[in-house]
Amino acid sequence: MRTDNRNDCELREISILPDYTKTAGGSALISWGNTRVLCTALLESGTMPFLKNTGKGWLTAEYAMLPSSTGARKKRGTDGRATEIQRLIGRSLRESVDLIRLGENVIYVDCDVLQADGGTRTASITGAYVAVRLGIRKWLQEGRIQEDPFLHQIAAVSAGIVDDRVLLDLCYQEDSRAQVDMNIVMNEQGDYIELQGTGEGRGFSRTELDTILEYGKTGILTLFALQNAAIG
Amino acid sequence: MRTDNRNDCELREISILPDYTKTAGGSALISWGNTRVLCTALLESGTMPFLKNTGKGWLTAEYAMLPSSTGARKKRGTDGRATEIQRLIGRSLRESVDLIRLGENVIYVDCDVLQADGGTRTASITGAYVAVRLGIRKWLQEGRIQEDPFLHQIAAVSAGIVDDRVLLDLCYQEDSRAQVDMNIVMNEQGDYIELQGTGEGRGFSRTELDTILEYGKTGILTLFALQNAAIG
Amino acid sequence: MRTDNRNDCELREISILPDYTKTAGGSALISWGNTRVLCTALLESGTMPFLKNTGKGWLTAEYAMLPSSTGARKKRGTDGRATEIQRLIGRSLRESVDLIRLGENVIYVDCDVLQADGGTRTASITGAYVAVRLGIRKWLQEGRIQEDPFLHQIAAVSAGIVDDRVLLDLCYQEDSRAQVDMNIVMNEQGDYIELQGTGEGRGFSRTELDTILEYGKTGILTLFALQNAAIG
Amino acid sequence: MRTDNRNDCELREISILPDYTKTAGGSALISWGNTRVLCTALLESGTMPFLKNTGKGWLTAEYAMLPSSTGARKKRGTDGRATEIQRLIGRSLRESVDLIRLGENVIYVDCDVLQADGGTRTASITGAYVAVRLGIRKWLQEGRIQEDPFLHQIAAVSAGIVDDRVLLDLCYQEDSRAQVDMNIVMNEQGDYIELQGTGEGRGFSRTELDTILEYGKTGILTLFALQNAAIG
Amino acid sequence: MRTDNRNDCELREISILPDYTKTAGGSALISWGNTRVLCTALLESGTMPFLKNTGKGWLTAEYAMLPSSTGARKKRGTDGRATEIQRLIGRSLRESVDLIRLGENVIYVDCDVLQADGGTRTASITGAYVAVRLGIRKWLQEGRIQEDPFLHQIAAVSAGIVDDRVLLDLCYQEDSRAQVDMNIVMNEQGDYIELQGTGEGRGFSRTELDTILEYGKTGILTLFALQNAAIG
Amino acid sequence: MRTDNRNDCELREISILPDYTKTAGGSALISWGNTRVLCTALLESGTMPFLKNTGKGWLTAEYAMLPSSTGARKKRGTDGRATEIQRLIGRSLRESVDLIRLGENVIYVDCDVLQADGGTRTASITGAYVAVRLGIRKWLQEGRIQEDPFLHQIAAVSAGIVDDRVLLDLCYQEDSRAQVDMNIVMNEQGDYIELQGTGEGRGFSRTELDTILEYGKTGILTLFALQNAAIG
Repeated sequence: MRTDNRNDCELREISILPDYTKTAGGSALISWGNTRVLCTALLESGTMPFLKNTGKGWLTAEYAMLPSSTGARKKRGTDGRATEIQRLIGRSLRESVDLIRLGENVIYVDCDVLQADGGTRTASITGAYVAVRLGIRKWLQEGRIQEDPFLHQIAAVSAGIVDDRVLLDLCYQEDSRAQVDMNIVMNEQGDYIELQGTGEGRGFSRTELDTILEYGKTGILTLFALQNAAIG
Repeated sequence: MRTDNRNDCELREISILPDYTKTAGGSALISWGNTRVLCTALLESGTMPFLKNTGKGWLTAEYAMLPSSTGARKKRGTDGRATEIQRLIGRSLRESVDLIRLGENVIYVDCDVLQADGGTRTASITGAYVAVRLGIRKWLQEGRIQEDPFLHQIAAVSAGIVDDRVLLDLCYQEDSRAQVDMNIVMNEQGDYIELQGTGEGRGFSRTELDTILEYGKTGILTLFALQNAAIG
Repeated sequence: MRTDNRNDCELREISILPDYTKTAGGSALISWGNTRVLCTALLESGTMPFLKNTGKGWLTAEYAMLPSSTGARKKRGTDGRATEIQRLIGRSLRESVDLIRLGENVIYVDCDVLQADGGTRTASITGAYVAVRLGIRKWLQEGRIQEDPFLHQIAAVSAGIVDDRVLLDLCYQEDSRAQVDMNIVMNEQGDYIELQGTGEGRGFSRTELDTILEYGKTGILTLFALQNAAIG
Repeated sequence: MRTDNRNDCELREISILPDYTKTAGGSALISWGNTRVLCTALLESGTMPFLKNTGKGWLTAEYAMLPSSTGARKKRGTDGRATEIQRLIGRSLRESVDLIRLGENVIYVDCDVLQADGGTRTASITGAYVAVRLGIRKWLQEGRIQEDPFLHQIAAVSAGIVDDRVLLDLCYQEDSRAQVDMNIVMNEQGDYIELQGTGEGRGFSRTELDTILEYGKTGILTLFALQNAAIG
Repeated sequence: MRTDNRNDCELREISILPDYTKTAGGSALISWGNTRVLCTALLESGTMPFLKNTGKGWLTAEYAMLPSSTGARKKRGTDGRATEIQRLIGRSLRESVDLIRLGENVIYVDCDVLQADGGTRTASITGAYVAVRLGIRKWLQEGRIQEDPFLHQIAAVSAGIVDDRVLLDLCYQEDSRAQVDMNIVMNEQGDYIELQGTGEGRGFSRTELDTILEYGKTGILTLFALQNAAIG
Repeated sequence: MRTDNRNDCELREISILPDYTKTAGGSALISWGNTRVLCTALLESGTMPFLKNTGKGWLTAEYAMLPSSTGARKKRGTDGRATEIQRLIGRSLRESVDLIRLGENVIYVDCDVLQADGGTRTASITGAYVAVRLGIRKWLQEGRIQEDPFLHQIAAVSAGIVDDRVLLDLCYQEDSRAQVDMNIVMNEQGDYIELQGTGEGRGFSRTELDTILEYGKTGILTLFALQNAAIG
């Protein structure tokens, strides 16, 4: 049994509160166990310099932990870990929109961690998807975009190996002594969008990888349902 | 009548949710009209370099707006306005604690604006006071500080002049066309801790100043009651 | 009696040397007791990005202390205190010019402290007013601006509380142990442009505020005369 | 057939020149098709701040492209992509050494790309392994480390999907239009150390993943042999 | 004849005002034609990290132009040119003091250009020498240093080629169209401390170099006398 | 005799490998004793902002040491020394091209030190000349520039004083205890382009300068021949 009595292939309790912030086009406050991330999507007219006059838009993401989101205060500013995470979030969410139908606009996704207890990057991707969908709905209503750029539903979950056992959705306590940690991003067709697995202290075999991927798929199906309920 | 039907000397609706964040020693989510600020207090052992071996501690503050807290996305990072605000927050809150009784510890106050509709700096000070008080209670229980450093209750409110009329507690719409804006920080003895008033487009007379200060005092008495209820 | 034998409501010896720098449009070297600030005003064609095509200009200010201006060498670069001060200088001086009559030009005010003995921010504002007036005269002669944008005379002074006594114009020795310090910026109509008061170690009562404001007004009348003499 | 006549599961021509730089403890110049990376390992006494007095050392990596390594000159400095890559290199190589046996020392791995034609991150990991092994040999001889910290052989290769076909070891021309790109890091036991796969424009199925992993394993066996020959 | 009627081998009018700043250990305001530089020397106890426990001190220099020192406002901050100049000033002045007799102290030389009309780096070196000598005298009196570290008198002048004619001490107008510009730093023994010559648009022959060096020596003899008069 | 048995006026063994990097327009790997520098030249269309619409181009240079190029790892990033060196390289190489014939293009010269054993700045200039010449040849063939902008052959060497003896081309061991170090840049007409000499611990007399310049000229004649052979 895990410290919080979950089964090996069980997610923590997750809720997604849509439209948390009025100032953003779309927003979602995702609570995932004790992890809490405010995900927002804002639209700005005009595209990135490298896409000028292509008719194509872009989606970019920023990820930050509030200083008080961990017990030991975290200094503000983008360190290497945050850079790596926000690039992952951006790449993943870009697969959810058709950048040509978006037109020369940029969607800014911001994921701000209010409280961290493991799994902030997968919570960010899962919540940001909701924020982007809600934003698109609003921008279409406001006439800021002409065509619906929606392409794919995207969600993310982590799975790992602790004490040589595969577990779904590690909390911080588990994550801090994990031997393997893998982040899985999938679309609604069951295809992988991103796979990022790291062994620490040991590698992982092909058989272990198979179990990790199986557990991940199970978790993501639940997340798809939660996202759809939040979007309404 | 004001756009939201308030009287000239009436505050917006304010609520203070204590202990919003588990990771911080003390925290408070303050909602002040549509302005929402997450205020937290963390304790770190060891004092600032310039106080080493004096037995004295310090309290310092940081203020930031989330990128999505305003309609036009705000870039991350500390600009001149944020610098000015966080220095004001720090100076004000330092009057609430006895730095000698605090011992060689530093209290980090973080005020992160989740949604901005005017008055974020006074909301930050008012909410941060609650976070600091809750933090002190916890640090005493945990034995991280030995003596209660609490000194003064502190709250802050703004008042200004719009269309040549003095108004308490400007929302963003009022603030953006205000002729005068003043931030008033007071302690429970009714003494001023900080006064910061700015004329824009015109100055303000001694008579107008008198009204502004009178309105401010009224507002702060209400805030003291809300703070005390939140601390419990 | 104060350390330099001044009365409580007496300014230090002040002189303003106009046109100190030939390279600047307008300049003034202000000596205020042992405080010495070089204030300059330069004009650049083209306005700030946020004012493009509005026909409006801007005035912005920078404040810096030379490394050798204090006994303990000050590192170059803009720290929080300098940011706060230069924002105050900029806001104050902007009230002296009509930004529409200025046209799409920017006035750069630079206040460089050659020697610091308290009151550098009020000396900066008072001296910069002279630099701006001299600059305007020159830019009109050179045809770089078409209309005289002059609006209000502006001067600044500090007053504070030391040993529970209100004093005008604190020198460094007084300032370093002051309980209250207030900066007062006024225009020639006797209206306040900026009020910034801070209690340190204790607050200040309404009665004390009244005395501070009274002393401040007296000081500013003297400064107006000195400015006018320097401008000629 | 691929543009350079390789089979789908064939590596480009690869050579590893050991001891290229005399100033580094260990070094290797790896040529992988037209990609050329100078990999070096330096030892510094004293460990990272977070490991002080634990008896444990660390291995950290930096990755940079020379400005002239691509046709369009690359600005110096660490951008998001380089941050992501150097974190991957560091994590991978840390699995090759026992940080406790290393003692309180830090191994600095530097991977500087002299010429880039795709696959610079896998070339960096593969070459850096050789530099680290050569460095260890030298530091043991010089008595700078007491015990051999070597743990695992590590190599890396990429595989991807182009035109819906799985290909091993993409050159730049293939990489720039790849639908999927995966980096595979393995140890000598055939276990995965890192897996990083990204779909761009489409996801990848479980079946495609299986082929990618199979091709990757084949490539890595060849790399192990090349590494061993270079180390001698 | 030159624009200001000087002979080819004639310096501009130069004056050195000692003890301009009370806050610095030593200071000199040097006026050199229209160029005006405030040179100061401050002493800090404790030496540079790389000299810890060697008993040796250091002298370091910073050079900056005030934004208003040129007609086109100069942005604050150290650019490449300022870096090059302050390194030259530091190297030159270090030859004037015995770093061992200085003990574990650092002399900070600051050269701030109030007004620029060519020759700011040579004015800085020449004025800074006076500031350092006055500082040493004061620090000896105050007992902050035990032994007189003075070693060599140092002064600097520029000479160049304009319209194929060798000229001593170029003003800005001459400098901006110079074909060759050379800075010469000498000690009281007539030995070169630094020579920095640059051809722009053409090189310079050995014969021209001879004339430049001859003119430079003449100028420096005059500067030595002015320095000695200022030091008294 | 010198440590490596060279005569006082003898260069170390030098070889220049042209076209080392395919991605650059021109490149040369220069080995000068144990010093090894990769010099490259890239062309970008469009000139510097300050030259817009003048029809004139520019040449700019960057210099960096790889972290592993010295035994004690060098942190990445441009420090004061690198700034000084790259400005010297840029100024020197600009004398080799006619900026008007170059048209509105910029030549970026990059000098990356792979291994350092003294003389990296003179090796950089000497090698970069070859890279620029090879680049020009290629850009003419590709039609990226219309006219041959070549003007002057440029090479650089150092000479110094060690143990009161003048020596040509100091290696690191000699350089680290040199009393005088001078860098000499010459063109094919035997004219000086740059002279930079520094005394450390003592100055240098006119007679010593004469010997230094004579030795330098001898060395540069050899370098011209090596450059021409590399260019072919």
